[in-house]
Amino acid sequence: MTGSVGTSDHVVLGPGDDAAVVRAADGRVVASTDMYVEKRHFRRDWSSGYDIGRRVAAAGLADVAAMGATPTGVLVAFGAPAELETAWVDDLTAGLRDECAVPGATVVGGDVVQSDQVVLTVTALGDLGGRAPVTRAGARPGDVVAVYGRLGWSAAGYAVLSRGFRTPRALVEAHKRPEPPYQAGPAAAAAGATAMCDVSDGLVQDLGHVAEASGVRVELRTDAFEVPEAFDQVAAALGGADPLRWVLAGGEDHALAATFPAGGVPDGWRVVGAVGEGEGVTVDGAEYETPGWESFAQR
Amino acid sequence: MTGSVGTSDHVVLGPGDDAAVVRAADGRVVASTDMYVEKRHFRRDWSSGYDIGRRVAAAGLADVAAMGATPTGVLVAFGAPAELETAWVDDLTAGLRDECAVPGATVVGGDVVQSDQVVLTVTALGDLGGRAPVTRAGARPGDVVAVYGRLGWSAAGYAVLSRGFRTPRALVEAHKRPEPPYQAGPAAAAAGATAMCDVSDGLVQDLGHVAEASGVRVELRTDAFEVPEAFDQVAAALGGADPLRWVLAGGEDHALAATFPAGGVPDGWRVVGAVGEGEGVTVDGAEYETPGWESFAQR
Repeated sequence: MTGSVGTSDHVVLGPGDDAAVVRAADGRVVASTDMYVEKRHFRRDWSSGYDIGRRVAAAGLADVAAMGATPTGVLVAFGAPAELETAWVDDLTAGLRDECAVPGATVVGGDVVQSDQVVLTVTALGDLGGRAPVTRAGARPGDVVAVYGRLGWSAAGYAVLSRGFRTPRALVEAHKRPEPPYQAGPAAAAAGATAMCDVSDGLVQDLGHVAEASGVRVELRTDAFEVPEAFDQVAAALGGADPLRWVLAGGEDHALAATFPAGGVPDGWRVVGAVGEGEGVTVDGAEYETPGWESFAQR
Repeated sequence: MTGSVGTSDHVVLGPGDDAAVVRAADGRVVASTDMYVEKRHFRRDWSSGYDIGRRVAAAGLADVAAMGATPTGVLVAFGAPAELETAWVDDLTAGLRDECAVPGATVVGGDVVQSDQVVLTVTALGDLGGRAPVTRAGARPGDVVAVYGRLGWSAAGYAVLSRGFRTPRALVEAHKRPEPPYQAGPAAAAAGATAMCDVSDGLVQDLGHVAEASGVRVELRTDAFEVPEAFDQVAAALGGADPLRWVLAGGEDHALAATFPAGGVPDGWRVVGAVGEGEGVTVDGAEYETPGWESFAQR
């Protein structure tokens, strides 16, 4: 992964030694690790190495942002068969580098080994800037629930691709390359968010973790969501899929979902519900059946 | 990996949220990541899940110590086939936890996914305690070269196992479960080590990285090493292996090797050579042919 070296004020010592050294200015470091396995989490015939690099970096960086932190550095461990083309690895490396650059982070270290399947582990580090981490456990009855970023785009793009289509291009691109709203995480923390998560498995499922960790009920209102026009068109073309289901249960867009004290929602966030007493997640007052979003290979 | 939660002053927020939060008291964090693939880096018929957990944790923690840092937290990503026994995973988790505890670190986060092969990524974090990181690049002509910890034990244990023997037990155990001298890393940094690495690939090979990064020649003297008696016995039993070769080229013991200004070697370190002008590594004044230590599956 040496090709992915970037320069950044965050980096004290980059790749090439026993370990990297990254600034953790406020005396704490946020750290998240995720593993991605070929044919389970990505397909090389659907996505370029570049897009896969961007996607796996985005997921890790979004986890850091969802704590209210600014991403600083990423470590990448990479396993692949010996016969994997060098050009593909170069593309992957470029994708990792470019996605890290979005929130100002860099690839600071890595490891490359041989394996039967292509497998990637992304560990993302971040800086809380002196703020308390925003966990899943702080939502309180009376808070409002808000989201920032795309919901359902990746799922709609997946639906398109799985039927063999390549358009609408915006949805296909959204599946290949999510665009997490990194800056919204620290901004939400600064504004007093009481709980936060990124939407990796699907909004209802991820908010279910917030509800459980906080000991509250999350109550969503469907009239608060904006379903993109393209969703309706694709749903019709695919023979009657439910576009709202992509919004509520589609994963991998890495939008952010947070709870705020009523009246304290910062700019750019869309209020989509409220926090009440109880447990679980309701949609328009009823339980919402969702198996959650799973990567295609598990379906 | 939730079972591996430990408590530690280093941990602000442990597993279960989008990311962990670990103290980085001096405003920087040391971070190293390594991937391990079944049948390449470990064998489940040779090592228990517990021993594999200890071994992969040890390698990551030793990387952190080799920068002069104290290990604080470890993240573990784990891929395995669905049919892998739960008991094996519990053993692995216990091994990771117990090895982390040796230098006072804990498993702070992780990820579990399905994969065809068992694959592990260990990311170790550490705290430099206000000291500069000790890289591979600081060795200067006139320095002395010293080592701390076992050399060749894992290689000798591997030689025993590969012939189907199970004794001497001390060597077999050393292969299954290295004992890196974690505390010697920060101590060497405090004492003014100019360069340092851990011995993961073999002493000559790893010091070759120091020589290259520092632009110097590392000159080892074989009379400075102590070859354990058991090595001679095993070498004879195996039909004439060279025990010194295990010491010089055997990897995976995770001893530490460092350079110090002459006269500045702290207690417990064994001086085994000197730093001169030039390049590469010499043994008793001659070049030393070594392919370096490789995990058995690559041989």
